Amino acid sequence: MNYRFIIQYDGTRYSGWQKQGNTDQTIQGKLEAVLEKLAGEPVEVHGSGRTDTGAHACGQAANAHFHTERSCGQIKDFLNRYLPQDIAVLDVRTAPHRFHSRLNAKQKTYCYRIHTGQVRDVFTRKYTHHMAQDFDLEAMRAAAALLTGTHDFTSFCGNRRFKKSPVRTITQILIEQKDQELQLWFTGDGFLQNMVRILTGTLAEVGMGKRPADSMTDILEAKNREAAGEALPAQGLTLMSVSYE
Amino acid sequence: MNYRFIIQYDGTRYSGWQKQGNTDQTIQGKLEAVLEKLAGEPVEVHGSGRTDTGAHACGQAANAHFHTERSCGQIKDFLNRYLPQDIAVLDVRTAPHRFHSRLNAKQKTYCYRIHTGQVRDVFTRKYTHHMAQDFDLEAMRAAAALLTGTHDFTSFCGNRRFKKSPVRTITQILIEQKDQELQLWFTGDGFLQNMVRILTGTLAEVGMGKRPADSMTDILEAKNREAAGEALPAQGLTLMSVSYE
Repeated sequence: MNYRFIIQYDGTRYSGWQKQGNTDQTIQGKLEAVLEKLAGEPVEVHGSGRTDTGAHACGQAANAHFHTERSCGQIKDFLNRYLPQDIAVLDVRTAPHRFHSRLNAKQKTYCYRIHTGQVRDVFTRKYTHHMAQDFDLEAMRAAAALLTGTHDFTSFCGNRRFKKSPVRTITQILIEQKDQELQLWFTGDGFLQNMVRILTGTLAEVGMGKRPADSMTDILEAKNREAAGEALPAQGLTLMSVSYE
Repeated sequence: MNYRFIIQYDGTRYSGWQKQGNTDQTIQGKLEAVLEKLAGEPVEVHGSGRTDTGAHACGQAANAHFHTERSCGQIKDFLNRYLPQDIAVLDVRTAPHRFHSRLNAKQKTYCYRIHTGQVRDVFTRKYTHHMAQDFDLEAMRAAAALLTGTHDFTSFCGNRRFKKSPVRTITQILIEQKDQELQLWFTGDGFLQNMVRILTGTLAEVGMGKRPADSMTDILEAKNREAAGEALPAQGLTLMSVSYE
């Protein structure tokens, strides 16, 4: 049977979603270890995509094929009992045999959180990036409008050896200040490596008056990573949701 | 000069506010160490009261007498630069010589947070207590009304050898469900050891139908710790604010 999962995690302690080399400090690795215990055989988990070392998820999507007598509710309880406290499975359901979390994903939404208070916030310090700044939200929104749509995002890709198509469609960028927190919400059909963090870093520079909003067009056209701003740290980034047909 | 501080901390790693024995893992101890570095001599910090091992604060109040050439803003910056990331000083100001954070405190407000979702919340897991339950808020509010006012709270005191007056005045108890979080807010002129956690545990039992709301009167009259419910874990407890004249 093919099962779909919705997974929440505090990524602080992990080397990202994806299993790699000989570290088991990945979300995928932790899930596969518990599912192997449940199924009695190795289970491969497919995520909707990687998340960076230290980045978080409220609604990562994944699927896995395995056999069990347990109901979906029982699988969920088993996972939450044996997973570490910083990973939780919010939903388990059966899926069509050919369903694949990454290949069938239509849209993803990320949120980047910046704590803008003068003093750090001890309770959100692992989930926000601290910049004790005032930001010009109107300038940031004008810049964001130029980044929305279908573009070659090479300038916003952290992997300089990326070989596949760098064209992505950003459906929406929302920028909101809530008390001492600035949130940037990005929805699109997919994001290149570090792309949300570089987009946020570039928009933050616009908000601080270090770049004009209309320079986004030039940055996109440059197709050169040097043209865009710095990637902000992964700890401020959360994958909020993945949507399917 | 006498300085007043407002301090926020994530208490997860600490043995509470108050310095004790040979551990420096207390908030008071961390503050005194940084103030000694600033003032060039030992500094004694007076808090508005203890907080339990693992409990948190959004607005703990404290004061300390010391000499420095620095302005209040510079003292605040110095403290936030050298304190650990899970302690932050939100405000520093000068106070009258005789001001004492504990002796002059008029009211304190605590919030106890219970995560009521079926699955743990990975982002608030250190600041909430998880009880996957529906609670009868009306019954809890009826019980809370009987606890409000001036009473002998011996039944709600975790220290059985407590020698001073166990009479306290609770001004207000607010009970609110926000999405998957149940919050209990307590305001009063002071609270005995573990009192907020025992009050919350007892009210939670009322909310689960394990005790009638009107049994609060009997519990108060019993003046016996056995009559009340269990203390809930410290991690759900946050000292929100301390008020002065």
